[in-house]
Amino acid sequence: MKRKKSKQPSKLKALGDDILQQINKGKNPNIVVPIRALSNVIYNEKTKTLELGKKRAERYFFNVAHAKKFLQTVEIASILKKELLDTDKHEHLRGIFYIAKRTIPGTDVNLVDDQVESDKIIEDLEVITGLSREELHVSANKMGSMVGKITLKDSGDTIDCSRLGKGGYSIPSITDELSFKKVNAKYVLYMEKAAIFERLNEDKFWLKNNCILVTSQGQTTRGIRRLLQRLADEEKLPIYVLCDADVYGAYIYSVVKYGSIALAHAAERLTIPSVKYVGITMDDVVKYDLKKQIIKLDDKDLARIKQVAQYDWFKNNKDWQRQFKLMKELNGKVEIQALATKGISFISEKYLPEKIKNKEFLN
Amino acid sequence: MKRKKSKQPSKLKALGDDILQQINKGKNPNIVVPIRALSNVIYNEKTKTLELGKKRAERYFFNVAHAKKFLQTVEIASILKKELLDTDKHEHLRGIFYIAKRTIPGTDVNLVDDQVESDKIIEDLEVITGLSREELHVSANKMGSMVGKITLKDSGDTIDCSRLGKGGYSIPSITDELSFKKVNAKYVLYMEKAAIFERLNEDKFWLKNNCILVTSQGQTTRGIRRLLQRLADEEKLPIYVLCDADVYGAYIYSVVKYGSIALAHAAERLTIPSVKYVGITMDDVVKYDLKKQIIKLDDKDLARIKQVAQYDWFKNNKDWQRQFKLMKELNGKVEIQALATKGISFISEKYLPEKIKNKEFLN
Repeated sequence: MKRKKSKQPSKLKALGDDILQQINKGKNPNIVVPIRALSNVIYNEKTKTLELGKKRAERYFFNVAHAKKFLQTVEIASILKKELLDTDKHEHLRGIFYIAKRTIPGTDVNLVDDQVESDKIIEDLEVITGLSREELHVSANKMGSMVGKITLKDSGDTIDCSRLGKGGYSIPSITDELSFKKVNAKYVLYMEKAAIFERLNEDKFWLKNNCILVTSQGQTTRGIRRLLQRLADEEKLPIYVLCDADVYGAYIYSVVKYGSIALAHAAERLTIPSVKYVGITMDDVVKYDLKKQIIKLDDKDLARIKQVAQYDWFKNNKDWQRQFKLMKELNGKVEIQALATKGISFISEKYLPEKIKNKEFLN
Repeated sequence: MKRKKSKQPSKLKALGDDILQQINKGKNPNIVVPIRALSNVIYNEKTKTLELGKKRAERYFFNVAHAKKFLQTVEIASILKKELLDTDKHEHLRGIFYIAKRTIPGTDVNLVDDQVESDKIIEDLEVITGLSREELHVSANKMGSMVGKITLKDSGDTIDCSRLGKGGYSIPSITDELSFKKVNAKYVLYMEKAAIFERLNEDKFWLKNNCILVTSQGQTTRGIRRLLQRLADEEKLPIYVLCDADVYGAYIYSVVKYGSIALAHAAERLTIPSVKYVGITMDDVVKYDLKKQIIKLDDKDLARIKQVAQYDWFKNNKDWQRQFKLMKELNGKVEIQALATKGISFISEKYLPEKIKNKEFLN
């Protein structure tokens, strides 16, 4: 797949042109910004994603309450165009903050004093222009690894992820610009825990099962979510998620599938409605005799289960309501690593092949 | 470099043989364990590393206070030999905990109830056998990326780190088993922040400056420390560390150079006395006009400076005492990203080449 690049600078230029036109017409310049607050976040039952509603705010230059934000918006848009898109460079949120952090000429006021300010403006610019942060060349956390039956192209280099040893390919923070050259996989297995990734990679799970392994070594970054989404959309690969059987695992899964409140405006670029949850589940605890491995729930777990179970995107989901019920009944949670009690390679030789073959997924 | 493997199982076997001999002689079986507490950690001025002293404890089977630990030691040694070394597999600390977590036959007592217990026994086994945790095939966090002028061999795959795009090679948790095939680099630049790694990689800094870039995306794991140490020892490469100009950056540097209290027993496999600190320093703040980018110290920073400045391995170090003094005088710290105020690629085009050319390092 070829990534289109040409429209990015022109969309930012359009924003500038529009403001210029308003000034030339003697108007009070204003920018229309879709609202990104919870009040404007909707769970779309049909597309099964969290998305922004239609509420919009206007930001005026001649308005004491708006002037600074207006200036921040224009200045940061200018930085993104001139420093990043025009030069084809990328920069992290923290770097953008430093570039933007300067004194407004003729005053002793800084354009931004805190990174939160520039971060919010960048999110505003995403919804204003319809471009993702990645398309604006702004990156965040680099995280995660990939191995398996995929050859991709990254900045001119052709990378065969089946020949990268135990380490694997280190996923960049922006994955929009990768292109997939050759994909021989039947599915993608995504896991939060790098320890499990190393187990499966050492066992050559991806070779024996014709698949791709992805881990995040922590939170599922936007780069990883976008990578998984592109593998689902462009390569029509099923994506399976492997997490602990607890409410946090359920939430990680839901973010990959439906999106998150904070990034509802980026939903269409990040969510994967077709994703399935492969395990570990509370039913596995019974099936694979893991009762002794149950870790008792504490008050925080219980409160979080109550909260998550009521989210719009979980409340009508029978599979997960059943899981939450079982967690409460058994008063416990189970980690993936508990499968090691059945044998060090039980997960790669029996548990996963069996579950995937029998399509024992949660939705 | 060829990694030797054969002696690992035999050293664990020697431990078992010794216990068996004691039993056959009718003795109360005991295991001698070097003490790993702070009271037995010494800063060796000559080798410039933190290391263990000569204090030892004995662990007896027929002793109510020792019996459980004795059993844990023998059982976990057996797991490491049979499940890992004999099968050439590796497992994470958490996995070992689950494998060890079983009821002692004929009792209702678990061999281990908490991961802390198995972790401690594994550290004991390191000092008992003289093998590192990595040589015992026990892994921990997988973290970090590498790009640049190095071709290495990982589990049979030959990996050219100059052809891995923006992502790079994802460093495995155990780096002892990698071998270096071709190294064309003049030095290694290690940085904590993945954001800076991405900046330097996008600017092809490693190509223009003939070097290797390594980032940890968080803490400097044992795998990364060992990788850097091996590049210093086996390839005679200078290692330069790039951190924020604050006490936490200083501490990260000191761990790479001298070791850490918790891992004093593994010092010889992890420390790199020849490592140098390239930046960012408090002197850079003046030299590169970054005063506006200073972030004020809070009470926590001040307390930590006081504490770190008094550590044995810092207290006679003039370079760092000067840095700590400047931090207090300027009442501030500075992040690497602050260099972006001078231009997005200032760090790769001017700051680093200039500092490295002029050998402006801290020791």
